[in-house]
Amino acid sequence: MQDSSSNVGSPDWLSQVRWTADGLVPAIAQDAVTGEILMMAWMNRESLQLTATEGRAVYWSRSRGKLWRKGESSGHQQVVREIRLDCDEDVILLKVEQQGGIACHTGRRSCFYRKLEQGQWVSVDAVIKDPQAIYGNGEGNSSHE
Amino acid sequence: MQDSSSNVGSPDWLSQVRWTADGLVPAIAQDAVTGEILMMAWMNRESLQLTATEGRAVYWSRSRGKLWRKGESSGHQQVVREIRLDCDEDVILLKVEQQGGIACHTGRRSCFYRKLEQGQWVSVDAVIKDPQAIYGNGEGNSSHE
Repeated sequence: MQDSSSNVGSPDWLSQVRWTADGLVPAIAQDAVTGEILMMAWMNRESLQLTATEGRAVYWSRSRGKLWRKGESSGHQQVVREIRLDCDEDVILLKVEQQGGIACHTGRRSCFYRKLEQGQWVSVDAVIKDPQAIYGNGEGNSSHE
Repeated sequence: MQDSSSNVGSPDWLSQVRWTADGLVPAIAQDAVTGEILMMAWMNRESLQLTATEGRAVYWSRSRGKLWRKGESSGHQQVVREIRLDCDEDVILLKVEQQGGIACHTGRRSCFYRKLEQGQWVSVDAVIKDPQAIYGNGEGNSSHE
């Protein structure tokens, strides 16, 4: 395949991803062992490339407008075992080992802890660790987005 | 809780979802038994409400600009066992029973059949059924988006 100027410095596998107009792609993190879905966040080209080269999940924080190495403040890194792409080439799936067993900033294992029951969202999963104990005095204790 | 005019005809649980500027929310479908991630698609308010009331996954097709009752052409409906919402209230998770065992329009079980191996996306999951046999002579044999 010939290089095109837009591909310089960017591997083909990254160019194959269909990025949004904002240059992002949604990435689902799934526990590689249990199959539990831990979270969904967004990646830009650089964060996906770093995820592949570092072997740890690196997202793009839309609210903070910067790279977000998962676990940088909590210690709850995600060691990447597999990176997958869907049929439309616009969603990434990471199979990960979740360090500390906690993916959610609320101190729960998964971010999907609310279940629709009789027309209400009900929290059905336990908090494993107080966010205060994870992040200290409020520092970093915010949503990952 | 008092009604506000914007909530008329729309249950609170739907209003709690943080929709994109386009009025959509990403929805992940996961096999309720095996935990396998089958696909990710988008929903608008109406499709999420229909998903809850009908107990079958109804998405919003962005390319076709209309409601998309999963399985309407393939017969591969998704019977919904659970609907979950993440901590940021901007991603939906469906736990489903996948009818026919095939979620992907390519005839595979899951849409996430490509794996990154040595800098290439490699198809690692088998086609269970020829899409021609699922959709007929090309009719409906297109991506779900």
